[in-house]
Amino acid sequence: MKEYLKHHEWHIIEEGFLPENNKISESVFSIGNGRFGQRANFEEGYSGESLQGSYVAGVYYPDKTKVGWWKNGYPEYFAKVLNAPNWIGIDINLDGEKLDLAKCKVLEFRRVLDMQKGILERAFHVGISGGRELKVRALRFCSLADDEIGAIRYELTPVNFEGPITITPYIDADVENEDSNYEEKFWVEIEKDVYFRTGYVIAETKKTKFQVCTAMQFEIVQDGQVLDFNPYREQKEKYVGASVDVKAKEGEPIVIYKYASIISSLNYANDKLKEAANSALLRASTAGFDKLAEAHAQAWGAKWDEADILIEGDVAAQQGIRFNIFQLYQTYTGEDARLNIGPKGFTGEKYGGSTYWDTEAYCLPFYLATADSAVGRNLLIYRHKQLQKAIENAAKLGFTDGAALYPMVTMNGEECHNEWEITFEEIHRNGAIAYAIMDYIRYTGDKEYLVDYGLEVLIGIARFWNQRVHFSERRGMYVMHGVTGPNEYENNVNNNWYTNYIARWCLTYTLESLDYVKESAPEKFAALSDQIKFYEYSETAEWKKVISNMYLPHDEQLDVFVQHDGFLDKDVRPVSTLKASDRPLNQNWSWDRILRSCFIKQADTLQGLYFFEENFDLDTIRRNFEFYEPMTVHESSLSPCVHSIQAARLGMEEKAYEMYVRTARLDLDDYNNDTEDGCHITSMAGTWLALVKGFGGMRVEEEMLSFRPIIPGSWDRYAFKIVHQGKHIRIEVDQANACIQNDSAGTIKVTLYDKVYEIPGNEEIKASLQHA
Amino acid sequence: MKEYLKHHEWHIIEEGFLPENNKISESVFSIGNGRFGQRANFEEGYSGESLQGSYVAGVYYPDKTKVGWWKNGYPEYFAKVLNAPNWIGIDINLDGEKLDLAKCKVLEFRRVLDMQKGILERAFHVGISGGRELKVRALRFCSLADDEIGAIRYELTPVNFEGPITITPYIDADVENEDSNYEEKFWVEIEKDVYFRTGYVIAETKKTKFQVCTAMQFEIVQDGQVLDFNPYREQKEKYVGASVDVKAKEGEPIVIYKYASIISSLNYANDKLKEAANSALLRASTAGFDKLAEAHAQAWGAKWDEADILIEGDVAAQQGIRFNIFQLYQTYTGEDARLNIGPKGFTGEKYGGSTYWDTEAYCLPFYLATADSAVGRNLLIYRHKQLQKAIENAAKLGFTDGAALYPMVTMNGEECHNEWEITFEEIHRNGAIAYAIMDYIRYTGDKEYLVDYGLEVLIGIARFWNQRVHFSERRGMYVMHGVTGPNEYENNVNNNWYTNYIARWCLTYTLESLDYVKESAPEKFAALSDQIKFYEYSETAEWKKVISNMYLPHDEQLDVFVQHDGFLDKDVRPVSTLKASDRPLNQNWSWDRILRSCFIKQADTLQGLYFFEENFDLDTIRRNFEFYEPMTVHESSLSPCVHSIQAARLGMEEKAYEMYVRTARLDLDDYNNDTEDGCHITSMAGTWLALVKGFGGMRVEEEMLSFRPIIPGSWDRYAFKIVHQGKHIRIEVDQANACIQNDSAGTIKVTLYDKVYEIPGNEEIKASLQHA
Repeated sequence: MKEYLKHHEWHIIEEGFLPENNKISESVFSIGNGRFGQRANFEEGYSGESLQGSYVAGVYYPDKTKVGWWKNGYPEYFAKVLNAPNWIGIDINLDGEKLDLAKCKVLEFRRVLDMQKGILERAFHVGISGGRELKVRALRFCSLADDEIGAIRYELTPVNFEGPITITPYIDADVENEDSNYEEKFWVEIEKDVYFRTGYVIAETKKTKFQVCTAMQFEIVQDGQVLDFNPYREQKEKYVGASVDVKAKEGEPIVIYKYASIISSLNYANDKLKEAANSALLRASTAGFDKLAEAHAQAWGAKWDEADILIEGDVAAQQGIRFNIFQLYQTYTGEDARLNIGPKGFTGEKYGGSTYWDTEAYCLPFYLATADSAVGRNLLIYRHKQLQKAIENAAKLGFTDGAALYPMVTMNGEECHNEWEITFEEIHRNGAIAYAIMDYIRYTGDKEYLVDYGLEVLIGIARFWNQRVHFSERRGMYVMHGVTGPNEYENNVNNNWYTNYIARWCLTYTLESLDYVKESAPEKFAALSDQIKFYEYSETAEWKKVISNMYLPHDEQLDVFVQHDGFLDKDVRPVSTLKASDRPLNQNWSWDRILRSCFIKQADTLQGLYFFEENFDLDTIRRNFEFYEPMTVHESSLSPCVHSIQAARLGMEEKAYEMYVRTARLDLDDYNNDTEDGCHITSMAGTWLALVKGFGGMRVEEEMLSFRPIIPGSWDRYAFKIVHQGKHIRIEVDQANACIQNDSAGTIKVTLYDKVYEIPGNEEIKASLQHA
Repeated sequence: MKEYLKHHEWHIIEEGFLPENNKISESVFSIGNGRFGQRANFEEGYSGESLQGSYVAGVYYPDKTKVGWWKNGYPEYFAKVLNAPNWIGIDINLDGEKLDLAKCKVLEFRRVLDMQKGILERAFHVGISGGRELKVRALRFCSLADDEIGAIRYELTPVNFEGPITITPYIDADVENEDSNYEEKFWVEIEKDVYFRTGYVIAETKKTKFQVCTAMQFEIVQDGQVLDFNPYREQKEKYVGASVDVKAKEGEPIVIYKYASIISSLNYANDKLKEAANSALLRASTAGFDKLAEAHAQAWGAKWDEADILIEGDVAAQQGIRFNIFQLYQTYTGEDARLNIGPKGFTGEKYGGSTYWDTEAYCLPFYLATADSAVGRNLLIYRHKQLQKAIENAAKLGFTDGAALYPMVTMNGEECHNEWEITFEEIHRNGAIAYAIMDYIRYTGDKEYLVDYGLEVLIGIARFWNQRVHFSERRGMYVMHGVTGPNEYENNVNNNWYTNYIARWCLTYTLESLDYVKESAPEKFAALSDQIKFYEYSETAEWKKVISNMYLPHDEQLDVFVQHDGFLDKDVRPVSTLKASDRPLNQNWSWDRILRSCFIKQADTLQGLYFFEENFDLDTIRRNFEFYEPMTVHESSLSPCVHSIQAARLGMEEKAYEMYVRTARLDLDDYNNDTEDGCHITSMAGTWLALVKGFGGMRVEEEMLSFRPIIPGSWDRYAFKIVHQGKHIRIEVDQANACIQNDSAGTIKVTLYDKVYEIPGNEEIKASLQHA
């Protein structure tokens, strides 16, 4: 844990330069626009510790994992998020000395991420050789208003000297991945050119053959005048640059405007990339930096209007929630059903692959409640598009007859992770994908989704579960062996309660959905049955047997659900018995020791109680929470939010707040000592959940929202907005009252502390705060 | 399964050329001498399906396994057995046409491995272009009498033509490994030269920096005359050759003698390699092919004198046992305590690493009973030398205070396998290493070994087990979680009966050994305690607690030991319910399906009953055998022998014979469809065990051997020899009688069918055959 960033309502602020924190800051100050994004690397380059990272949505490399032992059904490749061509680079050469913060005396340094406007600012004052001093102020953004454009304003001022400065804006596709098995580079040059103030490189990825055209145009302003120059053209492999010599004058700023366009073959034919890039550059240079920045800030303003959460009285918490919302929206805007929410977004390479169950289990509710329902629907359609691949994935493992197993990690529907204990075994993800269908429909009321897409996916998933369980003669029940639950600190266990529970739920929900579709759209049902060779009678008969006789481990003595068959045989003890030097376990213990310990990486049984809360009484939830919470180390970023929500529901306000801060400031304060690899984007939705479902106590019932707000003692007030079935609702909570405001025209019906209210358009209701 | 090889008492015979069997034959016809060896590749090269393989004992490459996800304690590398420089190559060019069996019309083909003399012979008659026909007869061996020398006699006869033939003997270090993660080559050239009739290449392995000098000298004889020639020198990267043009005459054989020396930096300083190679070539060329072959055959004769097993009335069984003994002795001669018995010997690359628990559990008894006791002792010393590495290996997993975990696979004491479920979990290997100490001492009576080496290893192992178990409050017993038993078709199970049992046994045996050493060599004991910081009182107190309260799963209802906690919860059913197309499972099922099935790769619970037979009554063994045997698929080559021994003990003669044939002819008949990768060398010791301990019923009791022979119905007679504590004993069994002959001078005491006999020197006893 590190706490070097300043607290501020809207800004992330780093003051002073600590090289040992640079990779963390590069992650935290990342910017993006859903289409591309990047770590907060320096324009002028940096020879110190740094993880260079520019990313283009949907572009990946399938690196070979077939080394050593290999077994049938192992995935063929490990998808790598690719470091894409660098478009930010501007080399600054001061009379033979390259500007490089690793080699200067840094007198002042300040980095600010303005989340309200979506602009990254960096200002520094350095001493270089010969007693010369220089100030730089760099602004940068990836336009949310025009998502093919990035822009930089780079201002440098010689404080106490004059003389030649060589300025070289460039595009460099000769970039490396930190994660490369054999130090291989993944980009191949297709075409490049540099002419006057523009240049471009078209590069192609190996194997996957994605092409990206990265183009730039720049101008330089000195003394208020746009300079006239004829740059020296620099070309190397996969690189173009344009060098300009400027005679710097003491105290007089030189401003470089660099516009870039990043165009990928996901959106254009290969032979149209250059044209599209040129067109984007023309739009950018015509508008100019300020107008681009203004349009960009307006686009952010619109997002904030819908999604902002206000917290008064706790700046750290306010900053945390805004940081989380900001990162989510710059990672995924919901406009392209081929994209998804990578676990690191545009902030790092790690994890590889763009889609995990995180999307369904954590991100979907956030987008449902803060964006148009088309966004949530796009997330579901993404999986529907990949159903055939999920069926193939299951077939590789020996499942038949249309059983579908969605991959644990994917780019294109194929499994692309390299651990059998995850890919074969962490199959509960299939449950989350079914759950998301229910969640979406419950929230939006869009039952037609079931007819056109949902049921087909559900049947594939139900078929999988039906084949995956087996009947244990000894127990006289259906059991499920060889799984990994959400707690990845155990592998290959039998009868993981969560997995068994969600499997049974999937079968039940599929049966219900089937009845609905049969009744409401019998012809479509018949067509679907035909298409997927669905033997309704025999298949559903089997499902019913499993539903009615599924084994769900429960311990009589403790009266808790048992995480899996062997769990209580472990050396069961609380996290408080660990030494500080043991944590995080994944950095200090061997995997062997972790697997055999009782310590839980992330909510597992509790995850189930969170998903299916309505099926359990509060005492049951409390007993399980009190049993599992003390053993949970929360080394998955997806964990604290669930605990926070549950603690809030159980009236454990302190625990709820502790877990809330942990999720909200996970990256800002580097809780798990891994922010340098990138931010934990998907779990940021968990922060939102912790606030809205935790403190706000929001639940979604049929056609209606309910609330049961509490407020942490240190907060004065918090407020959030929700879009629900087209209605805009604002919830505001202070230490005395909870207020629900209907921001739309028509009447809405909500529940507040178990009481149903009808709120006419543009009116509000208020109730005294209650405690759980 | 394939049965294309002819049965013969002493020869392995292939008649006719089937390219689809070539890789299998290359494995089966492999030759070696403990120091180097090779697959039966063709001297003249072959462009068809082939696995080129020459191997030098102890030379390996540590290939990177760090791809994708990585966790603390995972091994850093996967050791690869390296394909070494090719010394057999002789290119034959017939007026512009390269001789290549893949491109000729093969009229006759015959390959014979003479196991009695250790010589590989290949004869073929082919048609090439222009109606020309050619006969070749090639002889080859790796000298057992002088283990730095290989020799070839290659005779070619133009049947119906004359004209120029270009003959190019060569040394080629530009070889590939089939198992190479990134198609990398592992050898680098250091030095080479070719001059007149000699040439050499010194090549070095990447990373490990082993140097091997491979040198050749040759002569050509035509019409009884040694030809005078001045070859054309050919040099390429890592390659030297010498080309000679010979005018071939119709019907007149041309004979090429090629001598090679293979000298590695394991045995010479780098700057002495060339000298040693020259010296070996001089010895070879001075002696000439026939004398070398004679000395080689004599060396084999001496081995056979000690180790041969005679079977009359069943040629297939006779051939099988000799093949197994032959392969064992050409893989490991026991003269070098740095070497060990690689699972594929010199017959293939697969598995990587040279030392598995196979050595202790299967090979040791063979070498103990057929060779000088120094050989067995060398195998034990090998592990003692690596104790410090075993302690480091355990420390990487978080074990402390001198706990030792021997690696699952190793080259130099470090773990070099790449599956966590094996390296962390298949820890029963530690038990086999302790068991081998007991086994060696029980057989040889060399209790001093305990004092000087054994106890130190035992304490390291005992410390490991003591830390590896934990006390389960729930059960009130010590349990062991997260292990993989000998049955690798299950992973990460809890309380594997075999592992728990052998762990407890190790603790007990260490306590006993400790008492012995303390009493017989108190000063050495004190010095050892000091050196390894052994806290006798507190450490042994903990061990005793574990011993007295270790959990060993047992099922009351079935009255069998339970393979592990979850086993009986599986879909338990016999192998007979599988379809033929399912087998072998590891080639037809996904790993997911295999792990969840009840099918057992190799003896697991039964392995324990085999090791510790004296601790169980026959009924217990029978019940367990009858329970587990039907579920065992024997997809490990180490499995059938144990079942054969146990079946013999239980009087199940048919099953014993079935399992015997399966182990004895595993590679000859390609039972598991994988002989093309190489032969299963270590399991060949299992064949010997199946005969001697199975049919022969031999057991080792304190200071005495006991026998309880049976004989398969189809055999007339079988006989084997044993060396026991310096005494030579011959056991002969026919359908009527069992006879034990004391081939030494003094009196020996043996047990035959539970009756103790004293047999004076050079006399024998006879008893009627009994059935179990």
